[in-house]
Amino acid sequence: MTRIPAENLAAQFAFLEEADRLKKILRATPIHDDSRPENSAEHSWHVALYALVLADHAAPDVDISRVIKMLLLHDLVEIDAGDTPIHGDFDAAEQEAKEKRAADRLFGLLPAPQAEEFRALWDEFEAAESPDAIFGKSIDRVQPLALNMSSGGGSWREYSVTLDQIDTRVGTKVSRGAPTVWTYIRDRVGSYFATQN
Amino acid sequence: MTRIPAENLAAQFAFLEEADRLKKILRATPIHDDSRPENSAEHSWHVALYALVLADHAAPDVDISRVIKMLLLHDLVEIDAGDTPIHGDFDAAEQEAKEKRAADRLFGLLPAPQAEEFRALWDEFEAAESPDAIFGKSIDRVQPLALNMSSGGGSWREYSVTLDQIDTRVGTKVSRGAPTVWTYIRDRVGSYFATQN
Repeated sequence: MTRIPAENLAAQFAFLEEADRLKKILRATPIHDDSRPENSAEHSWHVALYALVLADHAAPDVDISRVIKMLLLHDLVEIDAGDTPIHGDFDAAEQEAKEKRAADRLFGLLPAPQAEEFRALWDEFEAAESPDAIFGKSIDRVQPLALNMSSGGGSWREYSVTLDQIDTRVGTKVSRGAPTVWTYIRDRVGSYFATQN
Repeated sequence: MTRIPAENLAAQFAFLEEADRLKKILRATPIHDDSRPENSAEHSWHVALYALVLADHAAPDVDISRVIKMLLLHDLVEIDAGDTPIHGDFDAAEQEAKEKRAADRLFGLLPAPQAEEFRALWDEFEAAESPDAIFGKSIDRVQPLALNMSSGGGSWREYSVTLDQIDTRVGTKVSRGAPTVWTYIRDRVGSYFATQN
């Protein structure tokens, strides 16, 4: 990593203090006891922990430390662009443009070499083409499945989601980067839906 | 890392779903706008991000990826043992015993090789003797300083904390692992206190 002199601490703290706003961005998924919506900061911690715990279910060429860095950074753009629930309606092109502007502004708060490094990690995650990004995206989609089950339906209930829609919108993504994890959780999700009918 | 068979996924998910309870553990420090207390899950994300951003201010032998793993895990014991504010009163020996029992139970949910690996990371962090643990502990103490300033006093106000007490309780720890960061933030904290009198 490029050495950054101590003079840059003011810029680094400006970024870290701005990042605190992620704690106020609410997601469609509730926490386990359905007492309140999950926010994107605690979600970012939880998916980083998921990646650490589930590392052995990644492809052999995945560098889990890079995946964790991507997951720590991946939702910061929501500070400006908001969260877009996977089962909700939104204009994908417009959202993508908003998120790129947010990335420009937020990572731009950092000293130049670090701004470039973090932006490259975020771009790689969004592109979902490298082994690290593919695994990270899978993990990001798995965690809400477990939360929706423990909270009694969560965002599935709110958006009247069917099992077929989960297979299409979530399953294709999770199985791409973490096929053994998908087999396990799909079985549980199937049983959950069976008890609801 | 030891390979863990897919059969262990049920144990891994039991741990990850139990970990969600960290989102309900409240800290003494408020979030930036003083609208509510920070919880230990979003705190864990924020300090992991601090470690990533401030990596260049660590000693040269610090492995930042290991520090981030420690920080993702470090507060999980609070699910059973609760949070103990640094400026509050508590029985240190009793709290340590509670946290050890919590670590036994929580990491014990995982498949054996992973339980041992995570417990060793947590023990190393708590011992605060290795370069990675010393830096991680410093970072964990820096983040509340910035939040207390942006929220208008935070836990300093609640516990009537003086600048001398910050130097003793926080400064000794931060300067041990991140001396350039302490110099920077101590200057800001000093200015903050000067405006309060």
